[in-house]
Amino acid sequence: MAANQGLKIAVIGGGSSYTPELIEGFILHHKELPVTELWLVDIEPGLRKLNIVGSLAKRMVQESGLPITVHLTTDRREAIAGADFVSTQIRVGMLDARARDESIPLKYGVIGQETTGPGGMMKALRTIPVILDICRDIEELAPDAWLLNFTNPAGMVTEAVLRYSKVKSIGLCNAPIGLIKQVSAKYNAAPDRIYAEFVGLNHLHWITRIDVEGEDKLDEMLADTAGYSAKNVPAREWNPEFLQSLRALPSYYLKYFYMTDAMLEEQLTSAKQGANRAEVVKRVEEELFEIYSNLELKEKPKQLEQRGGAFYSEAAVNLMRSLHNGTNDIQTLNVANRSILSFLPEDASIEVNCVVTKTGPLPLPLTRNPPMAKGLIHAVKTYEQLAIDAAVTGDRSLAIQALAHHPLVPSVEVAITMLDEMLEANREYLPNFFAGKEAASAAAE
Amino acid sequence: MAANQGLKIAVIGGGSSYTPELIEGFILHHKELPVTELWLVDIEPGLRKLNIVGSLAKRMVQESGLPITVHLTTDRREAIAGADFVSTQIRVGMLDARARDESIPLKYGVIGQETTGPGGMMKALRTIPVILDICRDIEELAPDAWLLNFTNPAGMVTEAVLRYSKVKSIGLCNAPIGLIKQVSAKYNAAPDRIYAEFVGLNHLHWITRIDVEGEDKLDEMLADTAGYSAKNVPAREWNPEFLQSLRALPSYYLKYFYMTDAMLEEQLTSAKQGANRAEVVKRVEEELFEIYSNLELKEKPKQLEQRGGAFYSEAAVNLMRSLHNGTNDIQTLNVANRSILSFLPEDASIEVNCVVTKTGPLPLPLTRNPPMAKGLIHAVKTYEQLAIDAAVTGDRSLAIQALAHHPLVPSVEVAITMLDEMLEANREYLPNFFAGKEAASAAAE
Amino acid sequence: MAANQGLKIAVIGGGSSYTPELIEGFILHHKELPVTELWLVDIEPGLRKLNIVGSLAKRMVQESGLPITVHLTTDRREAIAGADFVSTQIRVGMLDARARDESIPLKYGVIGQETTGPGGMMKALRTIPVILDICRDIEELAPDAWLLNFTNPAGMVTEAVLRYSKVKSIGLCNAPIGLIKQVSAKYNAAPDRIYAEFVGLNHLHWITRIDVEGEDKLDEMLADTAGYSAKNVPAREWNPEFLQSLRALPSYYLKYFYMTDAMLEEQLTSAKQGANRAEVVKRVEEELFEIYSNLELKEKPKQLEQRGGAFYSEAAVNLMRSLHNGTNDIQTLNVANRSILSFLPEDASIEVNCVVTKTGPLPLPLTRNPPMAKGLIHAVKTYEQLAIDAAVTGDRSLAIQALAHHPLVPSVEVAITMLDEMLEANREYLPNFFAGKEAASAAAE
Amino acid sequence: MAANQGLKIAVIGGGSSYTPELIEGFILHHKELPVTELWLVDIEPGLRKLNIVGSLAKRMVQESGLPITVHLTTDRREAIAGADFVSTQIRVGMLDARARDESIPLKYGVIGQETTGPGGMMKALRTIPVILDICRDIEELAPDAWLLNFTNPAGMVTEAVLRYSKVKSIGLCNAPIGLIKQVSAKYNAAPDRIYAEFVGLNHLHWITRIDVEGEDKLDEMLADTAGYSAKNVPAREWNPEFLQSLRALPSYYLKYFYMTDAMLEEQLTSAKQGANRAEVVKRVEEELFEIYSNLELKEKPKQLEQRGGAFYSEAAVNLMRSLHNGTNDIQTLNVANRSILSFLPEDASIEVNCVVTKTGPLPLPLTRNPPMAKGLIHAVKTYEQLAIDAAVTGDRSLAIQALAHHPLVPSVEVAITMLDEMLEANREYLPNFFAGKEAASAAAE
Repeated sequence: MAANQGLKIAVIGGGSSYTPELIEGFILHHKELPVTELWLVDIEPGLRKLNIVGSLAKRMVQESGLPITVHLTTDRREAIAGADFVSTQIRVGMLDARARDESIPLKYGVIGQETTGPGGMMKALRTIPVILDICRDIEELAPDAWLLNFTNPAGMVTEAVLRYSKVKSIGLCNAPIGLIKQVSAKYNAAPDRIYAEFVGLNHLHWITRIDVEGEDKLDEMLADTAGYSAKNVPAREWNPEFLQSLRALPSYYLKYFYMTDAMLEEQLTSAKQGANRAEVVKRVEEELFEIYSNLELKEKPKQLEQRGGAFYSEAAVNLMRSLHNGTNDIQTLNVANRSILSFLPEDASIEVNCVVTKTGPLPLPLTRNPPMAKGLIHAVKTYEQLAIDAAVTGDRSLAIQALAHHPLVPSVEVAITMLDEMLEANREYLPNFFAGKEAASAAAE
Repeated sequence: MAANQGLKIAVIGGGSSYTPELIEGFILHHKELPVTELWLVDIEPGLRKLNIVGSLAKRMVQESGLPITVHLTTDRREAIAGADFVSTQIRVGMLDARARDESIPLKYGVIGQETTGPGGMMKALRTIPVILDICRDIEELAPDAWLLNFTNPAGMVTEAVLRYSKVKSIGLCNAPIGLIKQVSAKYNAAPDRIYAEFVGLNHLHWITRIDVEGEDKLDEMLADTAGYSAKNVPAREWNPEFLQSLRALPSYYLKYFYMTDAMLEEQLTSAKQGANRAEVVKRVEEELFEIYSNLELKEKPKQLEQRGGAFYSEAAVNLMRSLHNGTNDIQTLNVANRSILSFLPEDASIEVNCVVTKTGPLPLPLTRNPPMAKGLIHAVKTYEQLAIDAAVTGDRSLAIQALAHHPLVPSVEVAITMLDEMLEANREYLPNFFAGKEAASAAAE
Repeated sequence: MAANQGLKIAVIGGGSSYTPELIEGFILHHKELPVTELWLVDIEPGLRKLNIVGSLAKRMVQESGLPITVHLTTDRREAIAGADFVSTQIRVGMLDARARDESIPLKYGVIGQETTGPGGMMKALRTIPVILDICRDIEELAPDAWLLNFTNPAGMVTEAVLRYSKVKSIGLCNAPIGLIKQVSAKYNAAPDRIYAEFVGLNHLHWITRIDVEGEDKLDEMLADTAGYSAKNVPAREWNPEFLQSLRALPSYYLKYFYMTDAMLEEQLTSAKQGANRAEVVKRVEEELFEIYSNLELKEKPKQLEQRGGAFYSEAAVNLMRSLHNGTNDIQTLNVANRSILSFLPEDASIEVNCVVTKTGPLPLPLTRNPPMAKGLIHAVKTYEQLAIDAAVTGDRSLAIQALAHHPLVPSVEVAITMLDEMLEANREYLPNFFAGKEAASAAAE
Repeated sequence: MAANQGLKIAVIGGGSSYTPELIEGFILHHKELPVTELWLVDIEPGLRKLNIVGSLAKRMVQESGLPITVHLTTDRREAIAGADFVSTQIRVGMLDARARDESIPLKYGVIGQETTGPGGMMKALRTIPVILDICRDIEELAPDAWLLNFTNPAGMVTEAVLRYSKVKSIGLCNAPIGLIKQVSAKYNAAPDRIYAEFVGLNHLHWITRIDVEGEDKLDEMLADTAGYSAKNVPAREWNPEFLQSLRALPSYYLKYFYMTDAMLEEQLTSAKQGANRAEVVKRVEEELFEIYSNLELKEKPKQLEQRGGAFYSEAAVNLMRSLHNGTNDIQTLNVANRSILSFLPEDASIEVNCVVTKTGPLPLPLTRNPPMAKGLIHAVKTYEQLAIDAAVTGDRSLAIQALAHHPLVPSVEVAITMLDEMLEANREYLPNFFAGKEAASAAAE
């Protein structure tokens, strides 16, 4: 960005139902984040949604009276060229692929979760090559741009970018900001007066310290197990004795690891009843696009907040503002480990508090170590690294090793059989594995 | 040992059925390991076995004509005082406790394995305080003695000694020597012309390199999956594609982790048929002691070799010889990690090749890293460290955390419920957990 | 501090000539740092100065109209009890000792510098036991207080507190804030728009990055060698070719290491002319106290700024404000290394950028490594650690090793001979070395 | 080497006066090291010496009656092709260059030592590119060969090969074997009953443990300061108080660092008297070649032992035997650090005890750390790494940084001025620095 110009932002997967939240953020914070060009990009199959949501975006901007131009395009390179920020929220294979990611493992008695579960590995195999393609464009057309990645599995995608491209990249999740808001509400304290220390991986973090206005509230939070849940993970309660001896608040996604039997049963029951999370999301999305199509609508509709991904856009806008202004404030992000977790490689992505400087986030050393969590973090990270390498190389051996070492997979035999079925089902999205095949296509998340 | 005197050796748990093998070793290698005093120690409840096996030991020594005096005693301190080597092969709670270690987890659908499984944790809780008591005696009465630990779970027991005493200690397992013998037979090569690189934990190791007379035979060994099995682990075959992509030969105990579903099923089936490993061992032992009672027997009986612990005594005698003579040869031992595995603490016990110097074993750096294994090693080590600390402190919170983070335990709820039952069943052996209770008693392994 | 009360601050060495600057800071920033009790402590020999400066402090506060009570005392414990912040600016042995620190080494052809030079070691031997005594009081009477240490050698004193007490301590230097101000003036940019990355030890740091409003200005700064100097280090210019190949701006104290021959010659010349730094400082101090004694004076006099320690108080007040309010801003401080410099122990004190959270400073990972500096940093830190241990134990062997490994000392023989003379000259201040001797006495810095 | 064939050995710099010792070694140990082809290589200017020493070699072999063929050649590639071992003992610029290495620094009041001193840096700049050229040949013509490097500065040369080639390389020095022999003689104990723990860099090591037949003799050795000296370093005695507090025996080369003033004075005095080490060596060499020319001589002459490099060939033959037979014995070698010294990079060369396996040496963890030595080791290694990179790239900036950070250089100004003179004096041997210049030529060491 030239000093006297506004910012150019490219949103890959711009047809996402989340986009109106992002637009709202750009409008509200225009002063500190002077966006002048906003490019919403999507692929052909996502064009209908892009037009609906893009049209709403234009109405929202017009209503605000701000000098923001909204561009809708399927030309990714045009959108990226010269951008200051690129964000990605894509879903390679769209919701149908997600349905498969979640249902195939269940056949084998394995939790079919789309981020930290085996389903997440298939998502990674489909997604990482597409993201790295986008990175090639950024390296060429906007080498100084920041890539803000929301695409799940966000931890693995971020690490793939760190290790296999030169793009400056940060992974984002809405869980940390959600926890801060929950604590803020519980104690009626301003968010910037809360210091919550996160450690772990994306969707696999522990919170080891919660200071509210300088007072340690961790024990109180641990005692309030009922209050700590999330819309997109079934709300089983934590065992209080376990939490107290853990001395940390686990991410709600950790229920897949700490309550494996119950979570699996719940998924199997839902599946029998014909429901799965992908289907639910699909219905919610359709309703949202119906609402967005209403030409009278000129603001983010309330219903969007029930979508499950609340705060995603707030997280994104916060991060862009801090990077743009060098505010040096603290945010929880997915970045390279450096030496924060001494047992992981320096280039492993971790989820950790960072101070956001003008030239990027610097991860903060931990004030409290979670000794119980080390092994699980390392086990999942080992799986993740094998899966990333499998995605990049298309090497079936690595995919076998990744799945066989996933803590939720009960045996090598299940790993291999399940992998074969999952690979076959995703054949069209895995050119690295099935050479000579058509390229993957990615619609908005 | 004064320069012109022979060596004094104390065997804690001397009434073990393994003892005749040890006696045979001392007789065969008397020249390089000039034992003059051999003390077999056991507790009151083990006195019958001690007398039977001790009597056989005396006959064996007499037959050899060597100047070795065999002492049988229940006075541990007398045996330890001034000893050059102390070896332990004890079983706190005897085989009945093992039966419970293996059967209780099965009720909860969890593998009941006595070393790396949850059963091993109960064994650790019973055993570690007894071993540390022995260490207090060694610190006082034989501060320069080496403690050779065969007591399972050998990795955890060794680490407990490393972290909670000043005794110089080494953990031993027969698996590595077994692998060398197998390779030696397969290739008709002398054992000292084979270099096999072990890495991992006790009963949780991988072999990443097998050189036979300077030639790399790993791939051949990986291809020969049928040949690689062990008497005390059911002989399921490894998936060849998995082994080849792993690029390492896993310990047969790793079947509990890599074939969890099948191994569990097998255990459940056996249990239904009224059999369990503890019962089998019990019967074998009774037969052995019957044989030992034959006054005409003056040598190690052949039947002992089918006991499953073959090579234990060979490993022990080898190690004592090397320490005594400072031979600087290479053996696979359980020792402090130092910086061999960079992701584990320096005082974690690992199983690794060491050069045995006069002043102790020095672990050798790895020439090949097993990247796939890191996570599993770390996960099990994390569990082990929590369990060791639980054993030393009697802290129920640590026991909960240990079990909840064990890779074979499916949930926190199962961990806590199962733990409660296992603690209750072992009440008399857990004075640290049940204050004011009687001290634990330990008979021979 | 109770929520509705003001802060209590204890200044050990309150009779220092720097104190008026501190008072000014408390007055200017009373809103964010609501000090209500200010205790200036000194020892008997410093009472005259304490009264002069304390009287000025009271006049300054009265003029401000703020509700701050100023207490003057020789009772350190009364001052510390319940304090929120304790700052130390003491000089054990006063300026006469400094004169000896600087002159004795010169006899042996060694630079007599009072912080990073051998003179600094004598200062450390005298000072560390006194500071640790103060820490014992803080541990007992104000366990939650922050200790802000300005006492030189600040790096070694801070590390001694980190390793030998439980007090929460931070070391401070005015050099980093000075550099920021210089850059700010040069580029006419607000200080909070400058990010300068410091790495190294106290008085031994390198600046590897200087961003001004997001633009990299390091090369410009490296080219402007004339502009980069300091009042209390002779202004020799840096060799431009050296600076450019170093890719970092060295602290001006590094001239003692990078221009050893010239700096030594300069000191020898000055010494011949009867001047030394200690004498100069002594004269400046006397003039200042004359000025302070003027009862009409009700503000910090301009002349104080020429004292050489400009910005010390600004640094102190900034740090207290940030700790009190949890502002999470970035300051350059002396704190425990953790894993920032991977080649140093975790508890080594280093000088590094930190984000100042409510519960203390967290050191920020480096964005640029200074590969050339590693060896020198490690050499000086090795000396420092030996010297700290010598100070705490009074072990002459450690003092010999410290001095013999100091990069500015040309040989073991010089180290031992010089040490003997320095120890003897400081006998009354070294009770750890000369048992049965009188306790050291410390007047204000 | 095919299984039924003998070994081929190439000696680069075969015209060295040391060669007869090597021949003697090959003859004495032919059984364990069945050499059949021995190629002595040298460059044109060294042809006279090569012929003299080669002719002696042939007479020695003939006298032995062994089936060894000795080839003399200036065709390096022919000698290397298919070799099992390549050893290098070259001197780029020959003794005249050494004379300059040692005399130029003295002009600037700097010790002119040819290995760890600034003279060693010039030697490194001349030598490393030639060694890397040899490595290119080995990579192509004998990729499985071991390169045994005796060429000084052996630590830097070895590290250059580790970092800039794929050749399997080990650096060797005669100092460790010399220490063992000295201890062996003092205690009348067999060398294999002595365990001396070395740690540090080539010519910069400390011995932290000396066990003789299992007994700790370090203190006795430290007390016997007179006994510990070497022919090629002036025999100043160590200060006993220093040694005892160091708790380690320093290499005699460490006198340049621990007695800098005295060693410099000695060098200056010698220089005034017209003597320097290079000149002395030159005279000794001439005498040796006179002796070698005697056609009646058919064995290694006694006079060779006074040359200063005693045991070099013994070290070489020992190492080849152990590698060839996989004896797993312990030798002190220059190898990659891995994680032995945690503060150095993994690929830094260090001098350390190794167990020599069939597939190479594995460095042994330290049983005792030398905490006082860390800083100096790191400072010298930092200089070494900069100098290696300067040699490879011809980057003057790196050479400036290397010399400016050398602990024996008093200032940046001296570093730059001295460097300029040394570069100019070596112009013909530094094609990387003076592009378009003739290639360097290397005669035997």
